[in-house]
Amino acid sequence: MRKVNLREKFDQIEEYESPKIVGELNGQYVKLSKLKGEFVWHSHENEDELFLVVKGRLRMQLRSGDVMLDEGEFFIVPRGVEHNPVAEPECYIMLFEPKSTLNTGDVVNDKTVENLDWI
Amino acid sequence: MRKVNLREKFDQIEEYESPKIVGELNGQYVKLSKLKGEFVWHSHENEDELFLVVKGRLRMQLRSGDVMLDEGEFFIVPRGVEHNPVAEPECYIMLFEPKSTLNTGDVVNDKTVENLDWI
Repeated sequence: MRKVNLREKFDQIEEYESPKIVGELNGQYVKLSKLKGEFVWHSHENEDELFLVVKGRLRMQLRSGDVMLDEGEFFIVPRGVEHNPVAEPECYIMLFEPKSTLNTGDVVNDKTVENLDWI
Repeated sequence: MRKVNLREKFDQIEEYESPKIVGELNGQYVKLSKLKGEFVWHSHENEDELFLVVKGRLRMQLRSGDVMLDEGEFFIVPRGVEHNPVAEPECYIMLFEPKSTLNTGDVVNDKTVENLDWI
């Protein structure tokens, strides 16, 4: 039982697109990640995913159109919905999602990160 | 599928201690609430509860001691752990918890809110 200071945790993240776990509750993880540029189109078959922008700006590309997210805004991508987060130019995000969630969903490529670390 | 701007949503909340739902994912709700002063000692038998301070300061009283939470800090209260949030003097919080969670947990009193509204 420790509090988490988001800014301090982000200071510990040195790499882009390398999500870190900062909390766990009810079978879900709270993760932080720094993004830069375009990620990859993917979807999650069984997991809804919340993106909260803590710093910077995120353009959530969806097949139905883009959603621009500024600081203090969140967006929930429902399971099965293809999306591609694009940081413009850099973005710090907090994620809420089930523990089973893989960052690249149904795609496995060089951006896929398994076995996430806690910070 | 709409983005949520936290500041705009808080502007819509007129009462203290009246949590509103702003998102749903994976059987969990994202809620916003404005707190002022002391809430009530309680616990949740089956739900872990995340408190993220968006504005102001929250003193999370626990039987083991207090945890001070400032803006940009969160705390997860594990299921079964007695807690009493105290806003000093006012605090805006984002909550992440299972849909089944009652704001006053195992206590039912004049602060209990059932059938929460979406905003």
